[in-house]
Amino acid sequence: MLMRMSTLFLRTLREDPVEAEVASHKLLVRAGYVRRAAPGIYTWLPLGLKVLRRVEAVVREEMDAAGFQEVHFPALLPREPYEATNRWTEYGDGMFRLKDRKGADYLLAPTHEEMFTLLVKDLYSSYKDLPLSIYQIQTKYRDEARPRAGVLRGREFVMKDSYSFDVDEAGLEVSYEKHRDAYIRVFTRLGLEFVVVSAVSGAMGGSRSEEFLHPTPIGEDTFVRSPGGYAANVEAVTTPVPPAVPFDDAPAAHVEDTPDTPTIETLVAAANAAHPRPDRAWTAADTLKNVLVVLRHPDGTREPLAVGLPGDREVDLKRLEASLAPAELEAFEEKDFAAHPALVKGYIGPGGLGEESASGIRYLLDPRVVEGTRWITGADAPGKHVFDLVAGRDFTGDGFVEAAEVRAGDPAPDGSGPLELARGIEIGHIFALGRRYAEALDLKVLDENGKQVVVTMGSYGIGVTRALAAIAEGNHDDKGLVWPRGLAPADVHVVATGKDPEVFTTAERIASELQADGVEVLLDDRPKVSPGVKFKDAELIGVPTILVVGKGLAEGVVELRDRRSGEARQVPLAEAVPAVTAAVRG
Amino acid sequence: MLMRMSTLFLRTLREDPVEAEVASHKLLVRAGYVRRAAPGIYTWLPLGLKVLRRVEAVVREEMDAAGFQEVHFPALLPREPYEATNRWTEYGDGMFRLKDRKGADYLLAPTHEEMFTLLVKDLYSSYKDLPLSIYQIQTKYRDEARPRAGVLRGREFVMKDSYSFDVDEAGLEVSYEKHRDAYIRVFTRLGLEFVVVSAVSGAMGGSRSEEFLHPTPIGEDTFVRSPGGYAANVEAVTTPVPPAVPFDDAPAAHVEDTPDTPTIETLVAAANAAHPRPDRAWTAADTLKNVLVVLRHPDGTREPLAVGLPGDREVDLKRLEASLAPAELEAFEEKDFAAHPALVKGYIGPGGLGEESASGIRYLLDPRVVEGTRWITGADAPGKHVFDLVAGRDFTGDGFVEAAEVRAGDPAPDGSGPLELARGIEIGHIFALGRRYAEALDLKVLDENGKQVVVTMGSYGIGVTRALAAIAEGNHDDKGLVWPRGLAPADVHVVATGKDPEVFTTAERIASELQADGVEVLLDDRPKVSPGVKFKDAELIGVPTILVVGKGLAEGVVELRDRRSGEARQVPLAEAVPAVTAAVRG
Repeated sequence: MLMRMSTLFLRTLREDPVEAEVASHKLLVRAGYVRRAAPGIYTWLPLGLKVLRRVEAVVREEMDAAGFQEVHFPALLPREPYEATNRWTEYGDGMFRLKDRKGADYLLAPTHEEMFTLLVKDLYSSYKDLPLSIYQIQTKYRDEARPRAGVLRGREFVMKDSYSFDVDEAGLEVSYEKHRDAYIRVFTRLGLEFVVVSAVSGAMGGSRSEEFLHPTPIGEDTFVRSPGGYAANVEAVTTPVPPAVPFDDAPAAHVEDTPDTPTIETLVAAANAAHPRPDRAWTAADTLKNVLVVLRHPDGTREPLAVGLPGDREVDLKRLEASLAPAELEAFEEKDFAAHPALVKGYIGPGGLGEESASGIRYLLDPRVVEGTRWITGADAPGKHVFDLVAGRDFTGDGFVEAAEVRAGDPAPDGSGPLELARGIEIGHIFALGRRYAEALDLKVLDENGKQVVVTMGSYGIGVTRALAAIAEGNHDDKGLVWPRGLAPADVHVVATGKDPEVFTTAERIASELQADGVEVLLDDRPKVSPGVKFKDAELIGVPTILVVGKGLAEGVVELRDRRSGEARQVPLAEAVPAVTAAVRG
Repeated sequence: MLMRMSTLFLRTLREDPVEAEVASHKLLVRAGYVRRAAPGIYTWLPLGLKVLRRVEAVVREEMDAAGFQEVHFPALLPREPYEATNRWTEYGDGMFRLKDRKGADYLLAPTHEEMFTLLVKDLYSSYKDLPLSIYQIQTKYRDEARPRAGVLRGREFVMKDSYSFDVDEAGLEVSYEKHRDAYIRVFTRLGLEFVVVSAVSGAMGGSRSEEFLHPTPIGEDTFVRSPGGYAANVEAVTTPVPPAVPFDDAPAAHVEDTPDTPTIETLVAAANAAHPRPDRAWTAADTLKNVLVVLRHPDGTREPLAVGLPGDREVDLKRLEASLAPAELEAFEEKDFAAHPALVKGYIGPGGLGEESASGIRYLLDPRVVEGTRWITGADAPGKHVFDLVAGRDFTGDGFVEAAEVRAGDPAPDGSGPLELARGIEIGHIFALGRRYAEALDLKVLDENGKQVVVTMGSYGIGVTRALAAIAEGNHDDKGLVWPRGLAPADVHVVATGKDPEVFTTAERIASELQADGVEVLLDDRPKVSPGVKFKDAELIGVPTILVVGKGLAEGVVELRDRRSGEARQVPLAEAVPAVTAAVRG
C-alpha cells in the first residue's frame, strides 16, 4: 500500500511531550509512532505499527530459522498453575490480578513458564519428543512501579518468549546455546549494539543466565566489564574474597568516646583527631557500617535485616535485593526502631546484631569482612564507637551477602582485571531454568530406559517493544529519527514540494513505479503545506531515503537525500526510480 | 519453513474432548490446532496459529484495500473513558475489571469505541481531516456467562474492529457502505456463506446496524428471512401492527369462575367447556397472558415489569432484553411476589398492572394488543378470569414492547411475505453509531464554516477467531477438517509411507522442490508410524491436497489425493511437483 501523508493518520508534534525524558520517547511520540493511553500503556499509530511488525518479523524469522516453533498463549490465565510454582505470590505487586464473574482468580501473564510447561506435559510423554523449543510473540503485562521512557519500560508490551525442553543437562546446554546464537543474530540484524553479560537468575530460579544489554547512558541496568572479557550486570558481580588476616598481634578492642559522629565522615574525622593511627590516617574503609533494612517476603511477612560493610561503600539496593530474591526490600522505619529499643541510631555495631543477639536481627556481612580484619564500628551506645574490633575474634555475622556497590576499578571476580561500569537497556535475557517449573508442575517424560524423568527447561525472552525503543534511541539525531533500512516504516519518503501540479503528478508516478518495484513508499502529497514543514516532518519521521520532487523538476532533476548522512545529490528524473531502488537495496 | 510431522509440536487425538459439542471445536482440538487453557480461553498450537494468521491476513488485506489504516490499541485500559460513556457500568459482568498497584481502576477492553474516539480527538481537529477509517486486529476480552464451542465464543479472542469518523450523516452513510462492501469481500474470500441481517444496535447505541451471519444449525443467533428479501435477527424483527378493531358492539367485560386454570392450556379448555363461544372454539390466541420479569438496570436497581401478550406466544427473553437494553432481565422471584401482595399467581390480569395501578408495576403490551381486541385474561382473583376485556376500553398498557417470540410464517414487517427462521453464527457486525461516543468524549472538528461540530461515527467488527471456527464448522467431514485453499496450514501434505529409505528420500526431495516453488509443505516424515495412522492424521488435519509417496514408488508413481472430494490418482514421479503445484494453484 502506498502511504500518503495527505490521508495518513498522523500528526507530528514540534514540542516534546512533557512527561518524556529520553530521546526515543520524545521522538516516537513527536513523529507520530506511538501515543500514551495510560501510564506505561501505549497505542501504536500506523507508522509505529509498521516498525513494530518489522522488528517482530526479524525476531520471528530467526526463531523459525533456528527450528523453534511458534505458538500463541492467552494473556489472561488462571491462577492455579502460578500457584503451583508459587509465582502467584512471589510476583508481588508486579503482576496484574483479577477475578472473573464467578469470582475465580486470574492474572495477566508477565511471563509464561507455567503454561508452556503444562502444554508440553499435555502433548508429550517421551524422550523421543525432545528436544523441543517453542516460542510466542505476545502481549505481556507487568505492573511496573515506575513505568518509564515510553515503550522502553511499559506495563503492556510485546515480548518474544521461548522455552526449551530437554531430557538432561547436556541437552539444555545445547538448547541454551542455540538460543544464545539466535539472539546474537536477531540483535545483529536489528543493528543493535549489544553486550552479553552474566546475570543472576533472580525470581526465575535456575542455574545459568545471561542478559543481552544495549549499552546506552539512558539504560536502567548497570553492568561491568573487564579488559579480560568479563561482563556481568552489577547484580551478578561477586566480590573476590580477600585472604584472611592474621590477628594474633591485634590489640584488644577498645571503646572510645566519639560524640556527634552519626555519619562515616564525622566518625573518620573524629578518629583522626582524637585517636590518630600511627602509620596513616584513618579512612572510611577502616570503618564497618551497619545498615538496617526490612525484607518483605512473598508471603507478606516483614523481616528486619542488618548488613555490615566497609564504610567507604554504599549499599546497592538492587544488588542486595537480587541477593535476597524473591524477598523485596523496604525501609527500616521508626516503628522498627521502636520494636528494637536496644538499637542506638547512628552507633549500631555488631554487638547488637545477629540472630543470637538481643535484637535477634539477622546480620549479613560484606565478603570483604574476612577473618582478622579490624574495624572501627558502633559500640551500641550513644556517642561511642569501638576500635580494633576484629572479625572472627570479636564478632561474626549470620552469613555473607553481596550488597555493596560495585565501583569502577574493582577487580573482576575471574581475575581478568579492573572493572569498568556502563549502563544498558536489557533487550534480551536467557535462562537455563533447570527443573524448577517441571518439578512444580510434574512435567516428566519416559527416558530411554522407560524411567520417568523430570524435564529440564530454559526460558528466553526478547523485549520486542523495548528493542524498538532501543533502536530509536540509538538511531536519531537532533532533527528526528533515523531508522535502519528494513525497519523503517517505508523504504523511501517521496516529498512533493511547491504548487506546480506537474510536481505532484510526477511524484505520484515515481511513487507508483517504486511500489510496483516492491519499494515501500511514503508519499508527501499534501497540498498547501510548505516545503519547510515537509522536510522537517521527513527528518522527524526518519525514513532512510528521501526523494524530493520540487523546483528542480523544471530542469529535469530530483533530489535524493540520505537521512543519516544528510548527503543530497541531484538525479536526472529518468534515473529517479533506479537511483532510489539502488539506495534502498544498496 | 518446511513443517515436518517428526518434529512438529502436535499430538492428534482419536477421541473427542469431553466438553466439546460442535464439530469445529472437536476437530480443532483433535487435530492439534488449539488447546484449552481455561474456560473460553485457548492456546494456539503451530497449525492453528498458521490458519489464524491467514484469516487475519485476508481481513487485513481487505481493510487496507478499502483505505482503512491499521493501528493497535492496548487491551488494558483505564476506567475513565468508559466511565464517560457510562459503559463502565452498562457493560455489567461481561467486562473484566481490575486494579493496578496504586488502586486505579482498569479494564480489559471488550471493544474500543472510547479509545478510538479519544485518539482521533487527540490528533484531528478539522473537517479536512475526515473522513477517516482506522482499524486494529487485536485481542479482546469479554467475560461471557457461557463461553462455548471452543473458539466460537471465547472470553479472550481476536477481533478486527474498525471505526469511521465523519462530519455528517451523508459521510457516515458512505463509510458504512464501504465497510459493508469490505465485509462482503472478506467473507467471500474466506469462503464463508453469509446473510446480512438487520440488527438492533443494543448497548452500542446508534441508528443503523446489520449483522453478518453464517447460517448453520449450531449458530447461537436466530434470524428470519422472507421470500421478498427481508432478513433480520429476531431481536430486530418488528411486529406489523394490525388495524384497530371496532368495539362499539362488544359485550361488557364479565368475570367468570375458572377454577384450577393456572395455565393457558387449562384456561382454554375450561372456557370452551363452561363458556363456549358460539362461532368457534376459544383458542390460546384469545387469551392475554401476563408475564412478570425484573429488569436490572446498569446502576444495579431492580424494576419489576409485566408484559401482556397473546396466550399462544411465548416471551422471547432475548427479544425482550434487546428491547429494554441496557437493562438486563432477571426472574421475578418469590420475594417480588411478596413485595406485591395484590398479584394473584396464575390469575394476574391488566387490572392489577400498570404504573397507575395498585401494584405500580410497569405494564407493556405486545403490538398485537391493539384497540378493540377482546381478551380472556386474569381477573386478579383466585380461580377467576375476565372475558371480553377490550383493549382501549377496559384497559391500556404503559406502552408496547417487542417481547413475543417470532414464529415461522409470521409476516415480514416490510410486507415481503412470511418469515422463515434459521440459525447462524455472528461473524461480523456493522453499526452506524452516530454521535453517542463523540458527544460523551467531546470529539468535535471545525466544519467548513469554522463552526465546531460533533463527529459522527461508525463501528465495525469481525470476529476473527470466530470466523476461523465458522470456517472449520463449514468445512469438515466425518474424517476431519477440510480447509479451503489459502487458509490451510499448508498447501500440500506430503505423506511418506512404509520403511523403504528411498521413499523418505524421495518425499524429502519433492517437499524441498515444492518449497522452492513457493508451495507450503507439511511433510509426514515420521519413521515407524503406520500408513493407516498417517492417512488418518492427514485427513484429520485437513490440508486440501495430499501427496502419498509409498509403495507405488517401485513402479515410479506417487498418489495425489484431493482431501475434499476424496479423489485420488496416480501420477508419474517426474510429474509429482508440477501436479501438486497445479492442484494448489487451482
